[in-house]
Amino acid sequence: MTPAAPRSAEYGSDGQLLERVLTPYKPHCRYLKSATVTRQGEPRDGGRVSARGEFGIPESCYIDDTGHFNSVEFNLCFNQLVYYLLAKSVKERAMWPFSTWTLDEFWARQLPDILIVDFRSTFRRAMRGRAFWGEIDVVGMDERDGDDGSIALVSTLCRYGEEEMPACHGGVRLAVRMTRTRAA
Amino acid sequence: MTPAAPRSAEYGSDGQLLERVLTPYKPHCRYLKSATVTRQGEPRDGGRVSARGEFGIPESCYIDDTGHFNSVEFNLCFNQLVYYLLAKSVKERAMWPFSTWTLDEFWARQLPDILIVDFRSTFRRAMRGRAFWGEIDVVGMDERDGDDGSIALVSTLCRYGEEEMPACHGGVRLAVRMTRTRAA
Repeated sequence: MTPAAPRSAEYGSDGQLLERVLTPYKPHCRYLKSATVTRQGEPRDGGRVSARGEFGIPESCYIDDTGHFNSVEFNLCFNQLVYYLLAKSVKERAMWPFSTWTLDEFWARQLPDILIVDFRSTFRRAMRGRAFWGEIDVVGMDERDGDDGSIALVSTLCRYGEEEMPACHGGVRLAVRMTRTRAA
Repeated sequence: MTPAAPRSAEYGSDGQLLERVLTPYKPHCRYLKSATVTRQGEPRDGGRVSARGEFGIPESCYIDDTGHFNSVEFNLCFNQLVYYLLAKSVKERAMWPFSTWTLDEFWARQLPDILIVDFRSTFRRAMRGRAFWGEIDVVGMDERDGDDGSIALVSTLCRYGEEEMPACHGGVRLAVRMTRTRAA
């Protein structure tokens, strides 16, 4: 059995994994260009797994140019970076309870079994949103039993900026179905 | 001068206005099919202007099918319905402080001058999200002076469902630049 990952580690950008993570997205909606994942302890023990990514949005995928980074793009970029964070954590066995999954299990679950249950975003300063950075910290992890098996609740904080200071920030809670149930 | 709208009124779906509201969206991202706006008093006096719309999303505009109505779609649908609510309120002079605008002013301001400042959404029950209803209530209105002129802060609550009971809900605060400033 592969040993678990060390408690603290930094994982450089994994271009092949990123390409696979973004495969479900239409080509003009792939905004995440590179990402680094770091791990300091375990989220359930007060530590955190974080990701920092570089994004590029040459033009909106759904509307004429609004002139600003908007809340739909905030959400799309969050999804891409958190998918990468989770995929990399599976690959490196870096985060409980996903360290028992294989990457093939992750790809099967990526779209149907990872759901946002609470989402909030706050915009305080203007940001053009063509080229920028984003960060996600996993700040909490709970597991609970639901009607259709075990669910992991992943609490995150996130932020985006073009300069050092973030222009906007938010918090997102994900529900991840840990056990696949067969349709009746 | 046209008299102000009565304090309570219902405005049926305005297909021509809806088509104009959705013009900035790419054709496959136009999800709002019809909408009714109602007005009971003025939001600043404890009353509310509300909109209820019918939506259709034959397929996601940005990702392979996830099997569920997701938070990006929640946001896109909110934007389309709130744009319609505001445009109809301008046309009918139904909501302070937008009753002084012309529709031409609204079209010029729709993308650059109406910004989400706080967004939150919560998903409690599964929803397929192919055909569903959505509602927005304007529950607060404040005006304040900013660095580049007057800003209206519009507080809203919203919800979506396929059956009578909503499957998800949220709250969004918009900042609307009331006075256009010329770039220096």
